[in-house]
Amino acid sequence: MTTFEKNFTTSEYQRRIDKTRAAMSGRGLDAIFVSDPSNMSWLTGYDGWSFYVFQGVVLTQEGEPVWWGRSMDAVGAQRTVFMDEEDSIRGYDDTYVQNPEKHPMEDLSKLLSELGLEKARIGVEMDNYYYSATAHEVLKKQLPKAGLQDATGLVNWQRAVKSEREIEYMQRAARIVEAMHAQILEVAEPGMRKNDLIAEIYATGIRGALGYWGDYPAIVPMAPSGLDATAPHLTWDDRPLEVGEATFFEIAGAHRRYQCPQSRTLFLGEVPQKYRDAEAAVLDAIEAGLEQAKPGNQAQDIANAFNATLKKGGFEKDSRCGYAIGISYPPDWGERTISFRRGDTTVLEPGMTFHFMPALWLDDGGLEITEPILITEDGHECFCTTPRELWVKA
Amino acid sequence: MTTFEKNFTTSEYQRRIDKTRAAMSGRGLDAIFVSDPSNMSWLTGYDGWSFYVFQGVVLTQEGEPVWWGRSMDAVGAQRTVFMDEEDSIRGYDDTYVQNPEKHPMEDLSKLLSELGLEKARIGVEMDNYYYSATAHEVLKKQLPKAGLQDATGLVNWQRAVKSEREIEYMQRAARIVEAMHAQILEVAEPGMRKNDLIAEIYATGIRGALGYWGDYPAIVPMAPSGLDATAPHLTWDDRPLEVGEATFFEIAGAHRRYQCPQSRTLFLGEVPQKYRDAEAAVLDAIEAGLEQAKPGNQAQDIANAFNATLKKGGFEKDSRCGYAIGISYPPDWGERTISFRRGDTTVLEPGMTFHFMPALWLDDGGLEITEPILITEDGHECFCTTPRELWVKA
Repeated sequence: MTTFEKNFTTSEYQRRIDKTRAAMSGRGLDAIFVSDPSNMSWLTGYDGWSFYVFQGVVLTQEGEPVWWGRSMDAVGAQRTVFMDEEDSIRGYDDTYVQNPEKHPMEDLSKLLSELGLEKARIGVEMDNYYYSATAHEVLKKQLPKAGLQDATGLVNWQRAVKSEREIEYMQRAARIVEAMHAQILEVAEPGMRKNDLIAEIYATGIRGALGYWGDYPAIVPMAPSGLDATAPHLTWDDRPLEVGEATFFEIAGAHRRYQCPQSRTLFLGEVPQKYRDAEAAVLDAIEAGLEQAKPGNQAQDIANAFNATLKKGGFEKDSRCGYAIGISYPPDWGERTISFRRGDTTVLEPGMTFHFMPALWLDDGGLEITEPILITEDGHECFCTTPRELWVKA
Repeated sequence: MTTFEKNFTTSEYQRRIDKTRAAMSGRGLDAIFVSDPSNMSWLTGYDGWSFYVFQGVVLTQEGEPVWWGRSMDAVGAQRTVFMDEEDSIRGYDDTYVQNPEKHPMEDLSKLLSELGLEKARIGVEMDNYYYSATAHEVLKKQLPKAGLQDATGLVNWQRAVKSEREIEYMQRAARIVEAMHAQILEVAEPGMRKNDLIAEIYATGIRGALGYWGDYPAIVPMAPSGLDATAPHLTWDDRPLEVGEATFFEIAGAHRRYQCPQSRTLFLGEVPQKYRDAEAAVLDAIEAGLEQAKPGNQAQDIANAFNATLKKGGFEKDSRCGYAIGISYPPDWGERTISFRRGDTTVLEPGMTFHFMPALWLDDGGLEITEPILITEDGHECFCTTPRELWVKA
């Protein structure tokens, strides 16, 4: 049978681990327990839809990381992680799963003790997905001599600058999201049920592009029309596309868990002047923002240039206009580190990747024209070639 | 334009709230803050992919529940919740989003104070998704006089017995998952890339069936083949279907967020005797389990009957063989309350709905033949009519 292709070389994982260990040292941490599935995957290669139960990766200053999770998922770990040693994959008994009588963290605390960490300074992701308040309390109680410290974002920040292979995966995801947008433009028409259009988007995204298979996006396709588009995160139903309404498509291509989100807006029928004005203002503001997208500048420089230009065009936006992207699992395709907004002074570096996401929500609809970008040695590249404009089908 | 159809009547939401308030009283709680998206939706109708930021519903013993979340999502709340009063939807400023400098729970604590709850006994979902250890610490710090208590599962348990309308939605989801399985059987063949098959599954599920539109399942379709099928939660890639391998399809139809999961297994080529033996054992054990699926029996009765019969057939299963289902959001389509396993003494009642999920993971593959069921007045009904057998395409 065909074998499972590992996503990265062992030496790439080793570089990531080295980088993470340096950050741990900087924070005085002997170990971290990482439960964010994106961080687990980035450190070890682990991939599976098992994050609805407690699981994580333990990384100390020596040896291989240890994958820990439900016993039945240990088999999936064996098939996806880079680690060789038998002890590097540890499963807990199924009776711990969703059982009010006992908690998986009791098992984890035993493992941490076995690893000699009962008195260690251990970083945990206190403000991340899939690590609960109870998980934290149980761990504290079981390891009273350990110093549990908040390490939310510690690994996420190590992910900011992408390797060549990671960029390649994002470029493949970019080809996929281009194909998804092309399909929308091809098939969308008045009277089409929204769910039928979503089915086309999904099918195109998962078939992939140029022979690259599509993985699941970390957020489902969003495509609200008309007034629903004033609300950014409504999902679909079966109401048909109507003439005189704008629909925005906030979608991502995905390949080997790497995400390339990009949004476009389609207007059916004659475009009101307000939408043309908004389009012009957003396109100018995107250009102004992109001019600032270069190494040495700060994240906020992009937001400030974007907002100033948008204001000149007569529009305002009070939410952030971009965020870091890369490998991701539901519920979010952002890396939850750098934001394009006033006050974010992170200095841009070559290899950083962002979704420049200047969405405008108007009083009767939404306009999203966005660009996933890569910071290069001397500026930036847009990942996609999707035409940057308000789409219209008359 | 077509208006958004509310999923349930206001009086149905009121009944749910009454039931929840009684449970709160029983636990001595003045209020609860519910952050599980399924619980938020069940109590208020709120629907949107916004659970990647902090949000929730505050329910006290009086008046309407209060939806609280990111300002931009307040618009989505206006379009989906049943509440009428302006004060029942409260948004927080976008600068709170994923910003290490401040935490959304600071805003929530102000709201709770405004609602007169600064000294109240407030239940929070400490061991649920989308409520973090930091969220809990910030809330404790901001409301030092409040008594925060763990109310994990409090609302989930109220959801166990379904209303007629809920059952109707699950029946629609059942039609959809039947259509998904029929499509698999129609198109799967040796050489087909797995991702192309997943694209068909998604498209069929979202197009829906009998005119009922398909919503997104709370878990992506899982369809591992051969050795990968020994690991239950691996997602797809592009390796082709091969002769001599079994592939299990763990998928769900969904309608208005109600989930109807059902699994089947497809063998391409000549079936080894081991799979035939496993099939026979599982089918017998399912029959034995279903005989126990009636009001008055306990959840564990189904598991015990299933396991005893399976053992007679020469197989063992050490994980639970079923769980409650209904409305759900990622990352899990289970309700996380009742499990079919030894020790679960929950008494079955008419209107309860389960995924009877007796999956077997063999040493070289997996066999899943499962049934979503409804407990009726005098026994049970299977939601689906999908033929209960190992599928074979030669």
